[in-house]
Amino acid sequence: MTQIVDVREAVDEPWLTLGDLHFRSRLLVGIEQYEDPTLVRQVLEASGSDVFITTMDPDNSRSSLLLTDFADELPETDYRWIGTTSFARTAQSALKTARALRDLYGINVMKLDVRSAGNRPDNAATIEVAETLRAEGMEILPFILPDVDDARALESLGCAALRIMAAPVASGRGIPEPDRLREVIEHTGLPVIVEGGLGTAGHVTLAMELGAAGVLVNTALVRADKPLLLARAMRYAVQAGLLAYRSGFMAGDLS
Amino acid sequence: MTQIVDVREAVDEPWLTLGDLHFRSRLLVGIEQYEDPTLVRQVLEASGSDVFITTMDPDNSRSSLLLTDFADELPETDYRWIGTTSFARTAQSALKTARALRDLYGINVMKLDVRSAGNRPDNAATIEVAETLRAEGMEILPFILPDVDDARALESLGCAALRIMAAPVASGRGIPEPDRLREVIEHTGLPVIVEGGLGTAGHVTLAMELGAAGVLVNTALVRADKPLLLARAMRYAVQAGLLAYRSGFMAGDLS
Repeated sequence: MTQIVDVREAVDEPWLTLGDLHFRSRLLVGIEQYEDPTLVRQVLEASGSDVFITTMDPDNSRSSLLLTDFADELPETDYRWIGTTSFARTAQSALKTARALRDLYGINVMKLDVRSAGNRPDNAATIEVAETLRAEGMEILPFILPDVDDARALESLGCAALRIMAAPVASGRGIPEPDRLREVIEHTGLPVIVEGGLGTAGHVTLAMELGAAGVLVNTALVRADKPLLLARAMRYAVQAGLLAYRSGFMAGDLS
Repeated sequence: MTQIVDVREAVDEPWLTLGDLHFRSRLLVGIEQYEDPTLVRQVLEASGSDVFITTMDPDNSRSSLLLTDFADELPETDYRWIGTTSFARTAQSALKTARALRDLYGINVMKLDVRSAGNRPDNAATIEVAETLRAEGMEILPFILPDVDDARALESLGCAALRIMAAPVASGRGIPEPDRLREVIEHTGLPVIVEGGLGTAGHVTLAMELGAAGVLVNTALVRADKPLLLARAMRYAVQAGLLAYRSGFMAGDLS
């Protein structure tokens, strides 16, 4: 019976606390590709996610979605609003976006992306921006290619969590190299979010079974015939993988 | 919103109906390796399974577990009692077990296994026994290696469902050849249960994403440090994979 209590704790406990913000859902959903605030709310509700990730166009200080439309759909009492620099292709652009989100909307938790050619994380540029934003007191969740040294560098900067790429963003290819992800997870004290390439529920379950603290999905939902069904599937997949990891399972092979 | 109704239907609808027996849980749990009826009940409750799979030693007409002990723990109002011939190594032994379970306990739904050297299904012997038992009016869920012709032969005998091996029983190796499983699933009108080698939740999610009607797990739970946690994980994994399959996801690669 103690084990069933473990289930409840595992599913309900916050995986990250920043000041008075408690992050409980281990499923984060990127919503830059939606145009309709009501659909965003439906997708988030089906996914069970309690985070709303917003951004703005870094080059004209305009939100890609009208944030005023979201204030009614996604109140800050129910959703933790965090920012993202996912459109940034340079360190300068990422800095500009992060500061604009802070100055215009008071958002101080940033999903930090600096992506280079091929839409892949630029680890060096990301560390550089993280250092600057940390010095300004911002909470950072940086996105990098799996690399233990870079993970440790970001940890020493006091980042809140790490986001590690499983496969190219929007590829739906899953986790081709699970051992590389596991190595980073085992060599950092920070919570690790697995992101990029998670195309379906099985990919998400595997990520959690490797010891991830959570996952971020995005394009998979946009492309599904029924996004709300897949959002719900992803929610179950996170719980399945988390509980399996904590059960001490002994599969023959995790590939 | 229609999609959320789909979620409820997918999770609650029976995947198999035999007379007045409705099978709702898509997770079946083998329990031959347990010695304590209370633990069996706890594992089944954590898994959400509504099926109790019982057997007896084919060589001395004695149950491997005292069935009288289970009548209190697992009443037939809550659990569908079905039999299994999983200890049988020959067609003759399987027949003897199936008939004994029917004659002594009134069980007429049989998880039919005839395993040969290496504990692998013997497709030819299984078909032979299925034909005899079908002629006697028994409902059969046979276990075979993935083979479209053999699947069709069993379908033409009027079997209730097929159980297809993913990897060797108790190996925990998952689904090394997903395309072979998918081929059988797509070429039969029967519900397909994936079984053998499902060592953790990710394997189960993948099986359901391939279009399986359900899965059977066994040794994975016995070997986990916390069997009840893994049983619950497997339950979420089934729901995750089922909903993902129905969402029409478009992952780049399901391996």
